[in-house]
Amino acid sequence: MKALQFHQTQRCLLSADELGCLQGSGHQPADRPEEECGVIGIFHPDTDVAPLLYLGLFALQHRGQESAGITISTGQALAGHRGMGLVQTVLTDEVLDTLRGRMGIGHVRYSTTGSSHISNSQPLMARCASGQWALAHNGNLVNAESLRQEMMSRGAVFQTTTDSEVILNLAAWLNPHSLPDAAAKAANMLQGGYALALMDRKQLVGLRDPNGIRPLCVGAIGDGYILASESCAITNLKGKVLREIAPGEMVVIDENGVHFQQAVAPRANALCSFEYIYFARPDSVIGGRSAYAVRKAIGYQLAQEYRVDVDVVIGAPDSGITAALGYAQAAGIPYEVGLLKNRYIGRTFIQPHQQLRDLGVQIKLNPIAEVLRDKRVLVIDDSIVRGTTSARMVQMIRSAGAASVHMAVASPPYRFPCYYGIDTSAGADLIACNRSEQEIAQLIGVDSLHYLSQDGLVEAVGLGTGQLCLACFSGEYPVLAQGQIDKRRMERIQI
Amino acid sequence: MKALQFHQTQRCLLSADELGCLQGSGHQPADRPEEECGVIGIFHPDTDVAPLLYLGLFALQHRGQESAGITISTGQALAGHRGMGLVQTVLTDEVLDTLRGRMGIGHVRYSTTGSSHISNSQPLMARCASGQWALAHNGNLVNAESLRQEMMSRGAVFQTTTDSEVILNLAAWLNPHSLPDAAAKAANMLQGGYALALMDRKQLVGLRDPNGIRPLCVGAIGDGYILASESCAITNLKGKVLREIAPGEMVVIDENGVHFQQAVAPRANALCSFEYIYFARPDSVIGGRSAYAVRKAIGYQLAQEYRVDVDVVIGAPDSGITAALGYAQAAGIPYEVGLLKNRYIGRTFIQPHQQLRDLGVQIKLNPIAEVLRDKRVLVIDDSIVRGTTSARMVQMIRSAGAASVHMAVASPPYRFPCYYGIDTSAGADLIACNRSEQEIAQLIGVDSLHYLSQDGLVEAVGLGTGQLCLACFSGEYPVLAQGQIDKRRMERIQI
Amino acid sequence: MKALQFHQTQRCLLSADELGCLQGSGHQPADRPEEECGVIGIFHPDTDVAPLLYLGLFALQHRGQESAGITISTGQALAGHRGMGLVQTVLTDEVLDTLRGRMGIGHVRYSTTGSSHISNSQPLMARCASGQWALAHNGNLVNAESLRQEMMSRGAVFQTTTDSEVILNLAAWLNPHSLPDAAAKAANMLQGGYALALMDRKQLVGLRDPNGIRPLCVGAIGDGYILASESCAITNLKGKVLREIAPGEMVVIDENGVHFQQAVAPRANALCSFEYIYFARPDSVIGGRSAYAVRKAIGYQLAQEYRVDVDVVIGAPDSGITAALGYAQAAGIPYEVGLLKNRYIGRTFIQPHQQLRDLGVQIKLNPIAEVLRDKRVLVIDDSIVRGTTSARMVQMIRSAGAASVHMAVASPPYRFPCYYGIDTSAGADLIACNRSEQEIAQLIGVDSLHYLSQDGLVEAVGLGTGQLCLACFSGEYPVLAQGQIDKRRMERIQI
Amino acid sequence: MKALQFHQTQRCLLSADELGCLQGSGHQPADRPEEECGVIGIFHPDTDVAPLLYLGLFALQHRGQESAGITISTGQALAGHRGMGLVQTVLTDEVLDTLRGRMGIGHVRYSTTGSSHISNSQPLMARCASGQWALAHNGNLVNAESLRQEMMSRGAVFQTTTDSEVILNLAAWLNPHSLPDAAAKAANMLQGGYALALMDRKQLVGLRDPNGIRPLCVGAIGDGYILASESCAITNLKGKVLREIAPGEMVVIDENGVHFQQAVAPRANALCSFEYIYFARPDSVIGGRSAYAVRKAIGYQLAQEYRVDVDVVIGAPDSGITAALGYAQAAGIPYEVGLLKNRYIGRTFIQPHQQLRDLGVQIKLNPIAEVLRDKRVLVIDDSIVRGTTSARMVQMIRSAGAASVHMAVASPPYRFPCYYGIDTSAGADLIACNRSEQEIAQLIGVDSLHYLSQDGLVEAVGLGTGQLCLACFSGEYPVLAQGQIDKRRMERIQI
Repeated sequence: MKALQFHQTQRCLLSADELGCLQGSGHQPADRPEEECGVIGIFHPDTDVAPLLYLGLFALQHRGQESAGITISTGQALAGHRGMGLVQTVLTDEVLDTLRGRMGIGHVRYSTTGSSHISNSQPLMARCASGQWALAHNGNLVNAESLRQEMMSRGAVFQTTTDSEVILNLAAWLNPHSLPDAAAKAANMLQGGYALALMDRKQLVGLRDPNGIRPLCVGAIGDGYILASESCAITNLKGKVLREIAPGEMVVIDENGVHFQQAVAPRANALCSFEYIYFARPDSVIGGRSAYAVRKAIGYQLAQEYRVDVDVVIGAPDSGITAALGYAQAAGIPYEVGLLKNRYIGRTFIQPHQQLRDLGVQIKLNPIAEVLRDKRVLVIDDSIVRGTTSARMVQMIRSAGAASVHMAVASPPYRFPCYYGIDTSAGADLIACNRSEQEIAQLIGVDSLHYLSQDGLVEAVGLGTGQLCLACFSGEYPVLAQGQIDKRRMERIQI
Repeated sequence: MKALQFHQTQRCLLSADELGCLQGSGHQPADRPEEECGVIGIFHPDTDVAPLLYLGLFALQHRGQESAGITISTGQALAGHRGMGLVQTVLTDEVLDTLRGRMGIGHVRYSTTGSSHISNSQPLMARCASGQWALAHNGNLVNAESLRQEMMSRGAVFQTTTDSEVILNLAAWLNPHSLPDAAAKAANMLQGGYALALMDRKQLVGLRDPNGIRPLCVGAIGDGYILASESCAITNLKGKVLREIAPGEMVVIDENGVHFQQAVAPRANALCSFEYIYFARPDSVIGGRSAYAVRKAIGYQLAQEYRVDVDVVIGAPDSGITAALGYAQAAGIPYEVGLLKNRYIGRTFIQPHQQLRDLGVQIKLNPIAEVLRDKRVLVIDDSIVRGTTSARMVQMIRSAGAASVHMAVASPPYRFPCYYGIDTSAGADLIACNRSEQEIAQLIGVDSLHYLSQDGLVEAVGLGTGQLCLACFSGEYPVLAQGQIDKRRMERIQI
Repeated sequence: MKALQFHQTQRCLLSADELGCLQGSGHQPADRPEEECGVIGIFHPDTDVAPLLYLGLFALQHRGQESAGITISTGQALAGHRGMGLVQTVLTDEVLDTLRGRMGIGHVRYSTTGSSHISNSQPLMARCASGQWALAHNGNLVNAESLRQEMMSRGAVFQTTTDSEVILNLAAWLNPHSLPDAAAKAANMLQGGYALALMDRKQLVGLRDPNGIRPLCVGAIGDGYILASESCAITNLKGKVLREIAPGEMVVIDENGVHFQQAVAPRANALCSFEYIYFARPDSVIGGRSAYAVRKAIGYQLAQEYRVDVDVVIGAPDSGITAALGYAQAAGIPYEVGLLKNRYIGRTFIQPHQQLRDLGVQIKLNPIAEVLRDKRVLVIDDSIVRGTTSARMVQMIRSAGAASVHMAVASPPYRFPCYYGIDTSAGADLIACNRSEQEIAQLIGVDSLHYLSQDGLVEAVGLGTGQLCLACFSGEYPVLAQGQIDKRRMERIQI
Repeated sequence: MKALQFHQTQRCLLSADELGCLQGSGHQPADRPEEECGVIGIFHPDTDVAPLLYLGLFALQHRGQESAGITISTGQALAGHRGMGLVQTVLTDEVLDTLRGRMGIGHVRYSTTGSSHISNSQPLMARCASGQWALAHNGNLVNAESLRQEMMSRGAVFQTTTDSEVILNLAAWLNPHSLPDAAAKAANMLQGGYALALMDRKQLVGLRDPNGIRPLCVGAIGDGYILASESCAITNLKGKVLREIAPGEMVVIDENGVHFQQAVAPRANALCSFEYIYFARPDSVIGGRSAYAVRKAIGYQLAQEYRVDVDVVIGAPDSGITAALGYAQAAGIPYEVGLLKNRYIGRTFIQPHQQLRDLGVQIKLNPIAEVLRDKRVLVIDDSIVRGTTSARMVQMIRSAGAASVHMAVASPPYRFPCYYGIDTSAGADLIACNRSEQEIAQLIGVDSLHYLSQDGLVEAVGLGTGQLCLACFSGEYPVLAQGQIDKRRMERIQI
């Protein structure tokens, strides 16, 4: 394996021209960042873990609605089930009842229009020389393709285009006889942001990328242990959060307990800032900070940076609500529910009939005229990606009779693509890619607009400087992407 | 038809012993009142109405999630589609594209565990001497069974046990040659709370019960008209609300325009008060009052009736949110999001595995410890039915570290069953049936408890006294139920 | 009810111009007569009948593949299940296990492209004054529409356009208090060919039309009884065939045993001759004659009427096989399997892709070149409807190398539509409608062609003259059709 | 790769005790040999091949009903679709329309109760260094497990337990840069009976095992070529059969035409004799002999070996029909249809309800009493595996009134398991494993019984001695099985 050559990784600064403002891929993205996945792993000496995995995944459902799956070990063999759809759809009681074992891992995958197929669902299972292995992962490698090419040149074959298959094949190639050793060796070759849950018949392994881009924490439940992307999965199971796994750290859980080891040398901390802004469930604690508290602090911060004379503060449902409450409290302006999210818009929601689109009808949000009529309104949203949703929302508030509409955004301008596991528009689709605040305000139709400053974001998060990945705002990437990586490039080579 | 004898209807007062506190029916009710249905009807001279009906029903989805359906007139014939599930599931673009016509009606039906079957879905279609008729209705008759028996004794046959089939057969029997005349005649024989949308090939008919128990309003859209259970269906379609249909009034819409007539003499106004408390969408206006405004006014009213020394006010999602905001503003106490509703709990949600139930896990609501820890908390909920949900919620708030938990309820004690279209527990299941406020506080585990007074409710609604049906609080029924009517009694006679 | 006026029925002879040679209805018919339905009823004092009904329907599956259903009486109530598809698809073990009762009826419905909908499936269930009734029927009324109109003018409503709903409503109207009396009274008003199985909670009723057009027989099983369209359902259940129900006769089966009564005066016997030619299963006995024996006798008869000098006799699968064997034995010419029917062509078979149709590929039948190459071939088919299938088959035999191809048809020329329950082309689609044998031979491409004579058919059946309905060959209809009845006329009025 | 050690292959004779008469595997086998699969490959320069693959697979449907799939090359990439069920179910027009390309392969897989899963369906697709490859194969390797173990010890991982994945991984390992070279190299390491269709973007490769156990032929269609398991797939597509691929031969088809090469040295010819007896469609030609002709010759041969004084000769449907016709013609005894196969018993047929099994009802076959009553009957069946089906059939013929029942079997006694792709009982389940003809006659209840002699079989096939695999009759295996191979052994290690 010495012959395998990997590109040197380095902290880099690319200009928006070079990196971000490129043409989109034809894939129709959601107008909001989309988390890639959530992972969980449970070892419990006294009970079947399948129902616990179900509940843990249910708590992580916001991290992925496209597919769900679990794999358990019976002690003798691994067995699993995965499918398209929500956790409750895929993991029925019948499924849970057939998957009996004291150790297992689980996965939810994000929902987007492209590349939705069962073969992309996880956990991935495979047999190697030491028996069966399974893998669930969140994140994105920036060197998956070069690893795949190298292995294929030596005779390996791949049945999918997923990072998961690369990771599992690479690990087995590095050491098919020991999962922890294989995982640790692989960690030194994988580049990108990732949080992994792996298992064989006897051991549960957790692994977090050396920059700590994607979150992963460990908790205790009874005499057992839980690995999870977010703490809410642990608390929902009435477990106790022990601590977050450190960047580059590996945890091995088996009958002998929990063992931590530094699998790969840690690099500059770069926790994804969108975990705080949007992804994490409000009751999750990441980096020691509650997501709810950070969002309220963002509201306070916005009130300091941008004081506007309005009658009412409202939040864009659901993700702007907490920051709006924070702003309202800090500024002493009444908070109201001015926009109602239709609670029947689910993941299977079908865009309305052409005739309705021609009428320009809105159905995801409903304005409450009682609140907005003749009022000067400040609306707070978590982020602006392409801006189309924002423009429609502003239009709706005006139609309900608002005297003026101002907007504060709970994050800095989103200008650069993410290569570490967030699915969003390519550069040119990003409204902030090369526009000023004023130009954007005009495009989305607000009387005034303010984005949270980068410093304000760092201040609200409260971890100190240099702890967050701000690449999508600043273009400073903690891990070099090998060229303009489009994760769908491989998928266009259909298999 | 003179021979048909119907029971005299009168305003009555039954004691809780006589009427309400009876044993449940074996049907497992939701721990919340459930609306029966929503109806809509559209006549539009210039465009196909099927997509408009779709959007209108989507706006009324909160009134029923079990089944959906529409019927349209091509001018020559009626055609329809109905199915189990949400509007977006049943009424696909393919379905809408096959239903071409300028007039139609639609229906959504509520979701409950019993009696869920496609044969209960609406609109109901049938042929009679003057051609095809269709019916969609919301509400419940108290004399359906006696009407059915009378018609069967004359040779009629019934294929379902629904009120709808009784109404349609009765109307055709009374006058098979004119739908408006048949509907008006039937209105004089039907007893209970109802809002109907009927149609033949040429005419759209709306009808509201003489007490005005169930709501129904009419709006204009382009050169056409809309009938709908709630105004939000009209505003979502960018239509203009004209007015509410009066108790006992019938409206006939056709090429000649809109014609109102008093089909049956109006009786004491008795609009269902739960429309304001819980059912209606916040952006709907009923009786001239916005549901959002009434709920905030209820919060103000609660703050007047019950001032408690707490650190934070939270609402039980989603229905307690607005009253909680009102209370917080009136009392000058911070409002926070203390409980998070899991947004992936849908109508297909499967109760968690037995193993999880044994662990006592909660997954519908998640407490935000950041908000609740060491705080004195006031939680506001819309109503308490059986109390089990409330008890679990209080327990959850305490587990998250609250120093004390107080509860204010946005309605008076729910003590008597509804016979006019709301599905809830039978008497003995109602926690307030024969218990004091203190006993209830103890049962659900709060430090203090306050129910909104009946006067306070009337005040907050603001329509003046004697305009609301308060039967479920007071036992004073505007229409006499013939014995203890269990609407599932007929359904037990399976067909 | 005296006021109901019905058209006088009389034996009539219409010319082909008047009656048959009319334009088709737009419905794409199968190129073979299609039986409408099969019915069964079982009363068994000692065991649940649902599994027996399942097996009986399975034996009658050839009479209808579109939908299946059963209804049973628990003694207290009726319960049923019906669905689209084959018996084995609809009536799963789970369904059978929930339908517990000692008496029941069942139905299979034919498969055709038009009017395929669950609402047309049977048994039909309804409640009337004396409780629940259910009906399964085979056949077609010629006065269904006038009966429906009459009842609608009196206020009745209809939810489907089926004959079944007319029969059930008419019966309940005539006497809602006694099923046997209602059925007998209805029998005097129904015109057409029909075999009915009816039931209430206590009694099972069988009824056959006064001309005996559609078959119905009764058998014993244990201490119980079976009604069935064909004897094969009885023998498959290891029951004993008692006798066929006579034209116009009604049989009532209950705890007191079997009672026969003449419900309506019998008219000229007119058993459908296609039951022998094509519909009935070879092991069924109708009118005392085995279908297999009649088909072999038809082969003998063809050999007498039409001796052609060939090397091999083959049958068109499956229905020409038996007559071909008979011909080969009578003529002393070798019988071979020259055409193989693809056994994977099921009812869900999808017509091949356009590209394949352009290639003219055949996939339903495969010629065995070994048998046909350089041979003079006589192929025997049961009937020719539109002729397209025959032409393709002849072409296929020639392509496989046959030196010459001759055809004998096991029935007389099919020239007139059936109004009593057989679905086939309207007149103008019938190749024999106004063409000579020679013209037809040319159209389908055979060297010579012979149709069985009407006398030959009567001789082969062996019941004596005047016992068969030969209307589709002769145009002499035993029951007058009220105008040109298109049974799909009503269905075009979609409901 | 030199280090890979494979077991020497040799012709061997194991005793029934050693090899065959072992306990079954718990898998409930069909009472008839089951073919594993059918394969097809088409290269057509002028047209999309997906519809042609569909039709070819439809013609091969008898070789496998469990799953179906095709893969095509667009020239740039491979794309495919596979699913559970019949060809017509899986390969809808929508699927065919999305798979546009001039080259492709297809596969049907057999239906049995065990190991039915989509992951076992084919073609298998994978990416290796030279791009995408796809594989469809029929047959069974006897050294799959040792190949897999060897590769896993070098770091390979496997996602299924199928032979297909072993073949594809082995080939890529041997030469990831050239599919034909990789296939030829792999052929020298694979042991067992197999027929393969492989492809990359540009080349279609066919390969047949060195003993020629499984059939594979090549034909021309337009300016293109077809590979297929049986000639019927070629003739159904109106193609021209060129020749059969020789044992150990490889054919490569691309823009430059067809190239044959001997990939591996041929060994003793051993074409599966059951292809003639049972598997092949009657209109297929294998080894230059029509399956229909061989079956008739078997009938003649049986008439020479075993002349019994009966009134009628019948065939067990469907596979005994042709031999019965041959016997009847040779012996001058009338052939009749005495047993009717229910044409609605499909692959989804559900075994009848327990209550029906208790009644001992038969529904797959129906006796025609008219033919059997009071007759001395000779029934001819293709083979006897476990004997249970035969015993039930004999019982049925007797119940229909037969005076005596004799049986002739169109193959020698089936005594040894097959390791080359036929799924049947393990040894001890085989009724002939260690019983005499007389004992078997008694067990299945016939008055006399005769099995075709091995010499008689060779004579009827007419290829000369030493050309057929007779291992299941003689125990002389052309390729040594490595121990008692249970192909489900690996599948018990669930993945």
